[in-house]
Amino acid sequence: MSIVVVGSIGYDTVETQHGRIADALGGSASFFSVAARFFAPVSMVAVVGEDFKSDDVKFFTDRNVDIRGLVHEKGETFRWHGRYHEDMNQRDTLHLALNVFADFSPDLLPDQRRADYLFLANISPQLQSRVLSQMTNPKVVAADTMDHWINTERAALIKMLAKVDILTLNDQEAKLLAQEHNLVKAGRAILKMGPKTVLVKRGEYGVLLFSPESMFAVPAYPLEEVIDPTGAGDTFAGGFMGFIARSGKVSEPVLRKAVVYGSVMGSFVVERFSLDRLSDLSWETIDARYRAFVELTDSQHTKWNSQ
Amino acid sequence: MSIVVVGSIGYDTVETQHGRIADALGGSASFFSVAARFFAPVSMVAVVGEDFKSDDVKFFTDRNVDIRGLVHEKGETFRWHGRYHEDMNQRDTLHLALNVFADFSPDLLPDQRRADYLFLANISPQLQSRVLSQMTNPKVVAADTMDHWINTERAALIKMLAKVDILTLNDQEAKLLAQEHNLVKAGRAILKMGPKTVLVKRGEYGVLLFSPESMFAVPAYPLEEVIDPTGAGDTFAGGFMGFIARSGKVSEPVLRKAVVYGSVMGSFVVERFSLDRLSDLSWETIDARYRAFVELTDSQHTKWNSQ
Repeated sequence: MSIVVVGSIGYDTVETQHGRIADALGGSASFFSVAARFFAPVSMVAVVGEDFKSDDVKFFTDRNVDIRGLVHEKGETFRWHGRYHEDMNQRDTLHLALNVFADFSPDLLPDQRRADYLFLANISPQLQSRVLSQMTNPKVVAADTMDHWINTERAALIKMLAKVDILTLNDQEAKLLAQEHNLVKAGRAILKMGPKTVLVKRGEYGVLLFSPESMFAVPAYPLEEVIDPTGAGDTFAGGFMGFIARSGKVSEPVLRKAVVYGSVMGSFVVERFSLDRLSDLSWETIDARYRAFVELTDSQHTKWNSQ
Repeated sequence: MSIVVVGSIGYDTVETQHGRIADALGGSASFFSVAARFFAPVSMVAVVGEDFKSDDVKFFTDRNVDIRGLVHEKGETFRWHGRYHEDMNQRDTLHLALNVFADFSPDLLPDQRRADYLFLANISPQLQSRVLSQMTNPKVVAADTMDHWINTERAALIKMLAKVDILTLNDQEAKLLAQEHNLVKAGRAILKMGPKTVLVKRGEYGVLLFSPESMFAVPAYPLEEVIDPTGAGDTFAGGFMGFIARSGKVSEPVLRKAVVYGSVMGSFVVERFSLDRLSDLSWETIDARYRAFVELTDSQHTKWNSQ
């Protein structure tokens, strides 16, 4: 039931209306791992530079994230500086330096190649395919992508999609990939490209799941305060894949609960800057919000019926 | 269990990417009535001009909408001409003529004053209060409003809100009314102004219900094609109030199912221009989509568990 995640680790400088944090631990692999580890063992594949702090290595090991696949290269760690608008659905990138991440080309360890669950975070489709080709016989492969790859690497992306079980992307990206204005048509068109499940992330409006047999829609958990939306998508993916790995199978009921657990994890991470809110979360707190989430969306009010 | 609705009737010219319709029957009272009448008897209070077609009178009477409160005045019927963007959340008003609606000041019939359910569609807060003062002892009063009244008639609106049970408005309007950027804080602030239930309409992203004890969130029903969004909010309100009237009480379970029925009715009306899709809908079709909607949002997949 171990999950391998391949993605970025970086130092983020983030500005929102609530403040600013400089050089905070971030990156897709970080958010994913720290969320997924509540559900299943996680093995991380990523690269950092000589400036990567030993405290940050310890942050992962203290949380039982396997970092044998964390490569230390000469040079600096990936850096991103972003500023969110008052409407937090919008942000500007002020600075981006790939640094050691520019030449990232991971080789999985022998036991990672035999893992059952693989999450290919938002890296180039060629790299995603290269990692995938190293796997022996994974049960579930999920991949994330973004507009940049859809625009510049469409052929490689479509080739990669034929080999994954689950694709996550946002609503604009889904429309761009499918070349469809309508989101339902876009979701169904992407299913024909290979993935058996397409997860459309809509930020504060929730998630839409498409499978050949059904659609499932959840709103986002309504929060009184969003401090920093960075990493919400990868944290969602961590909770989602984590629950699937813990369940040991993919079925419609498992996928639906996994979407809720992913939404729950995503709702926590945005409550503070960086990974702060996830760092000391307890399973009891996660479980309480899961139950609150089920009640929030329960049109048949099971709770009231059973009283 | 009869519902009285006070609102507008107009002739709409609507342009969307799917076509154009000229001088089609519209207005808040029209959409509300034609949706609500599937659930409970509806009595309409509105005004039309000398140009109002007898076919359109017949349209209502054929659908058992009580039009004794439909006043015919000298002059022309209310007219609106709008054009939707490709992103249908955006529209421009190209022409607006209040005509006979400008002097609308309804007096309810004696039996309307004794009705249990009242829906005050989007008219001025003074008019809403004036109508409300004519009611003997309504069980449930719901009101709709818009940014125009929040900006220009705030004091009258707040006075009116103290006397209603349910308020419907969209997310931008909720933030404007509460003077809060965060939607959850806005919803809770509006509850303190009087309404026991606040329904925030988010268009293609669904509806958020606030009550002192709970929140309930539903996505919109995902459609492959939206032809004309005009009237979706009033149609939602019609299904919502209709189900409450049919249930004969307001409780958390009833409110939640009412939100789903409202969403179902709203999902039909946008599938064609004007009132076209609602005009010959069958209860079987409504019921089938209600069940599809419940399945769409069912995180605990009751259907699969019971198999």
